[in-house]
Amino acid sequence: MLDKIDHLGIAVDDLDSALAVYSTTLGLSVKRREVVEEQGVELAALIVGETLIELLRPLSEDTPVGRFLSKRGPGLHHVAYRVDDIEAALAALREAGARLIDEIPRRGMGGSRIAFVHPSATTGVLTELVEPPTAADAAAAE
Amino acid sequence: MLDKIDHLGIAVDDLDSALAVYSTTLGLSVKRREVVEEQGVELAALIVGETLIELLRPLSEDTPVGRFLSKRGPGLHHVAYRVDDIEAALAALREAGARLIDEIPRRGMGGSRIAFVHPSATTGVLTELVEPPTAADAAAAE
Repeated sequence: MLDKIDHLGIAVDDLDSALAVYSTTLGLSVKRREVVEEQGVELAALIVGETLIELLRPLSEDTPVGRFLSKRGPGLHHVAYRVDDIEAALAALREAGARLIDEIPRRGMGGSRIAFVHPSATTGVLTELVEPPTAADAAAAE
Repeated sequence: MLDKIDHLGIAVDDLDSALAVYSTTLGLSVKRREVVEEQGVELAALIVGETLIELLRPLSEDTPVGRFLSKRGPGLHHVAYRVDDIEAALAALREAGARLIDEIPRRGMGGSRIAFVHPSATTGVLTELVEPPTAADAAAAE
């Protein structure tokens, strides 16, 4: 059901210095850097193998990543898995009694569909499911 | 320098229920389950794409994972990256002034060589570098 790790989200307070660690020191290639208003973050994504490291700097304290940063400090924020059928994945979780943050998928970047699962359901790990866009969805999201 | 994510380490207090989430509910295949005395954990590794999810149950409170669990509760513990030259990776980190937990590599599982980098050097994320064993090392570790 889970095909691969789509990305790891890491909360950071200084995006430039975080990027220096992962790109300059550790040599990862930057795929993109952008402000994602609906998630309240400035994001830099770096490529490692088949997955991405997403560095997330909150745009304000009053955002999910901002609250995480205030409470826990910089560090691993969430793990996102690529799924081919997000409804089936959510149904399996619901069937197992898992607490979901998103009962139905919502739109993610580039026409993908995403849903968050509550950490209490997945061993304390905030977990995101990502179903990639169909070609038509991707074109519509351009 | 970093080829891929080798594994994600997740601290858990109940290995059976954690395994049920990742194998039964989310459908990942279990690669192995074993006690690793030198790391003070019982470990279950599940396959997702090119990487592993390692569920880590501490054998006692007085272990690195046990202390993490007491302080933070279950959740993401570390990220391990596969590198082809661990000395070069450590040299790059040292050059950048990064704080290392292991100044020189030590033996990991199956003849691999590993080193931990202090979270302060890598945006609050405890980071492990893993250089896979040569064929000769792997045979010697059998």
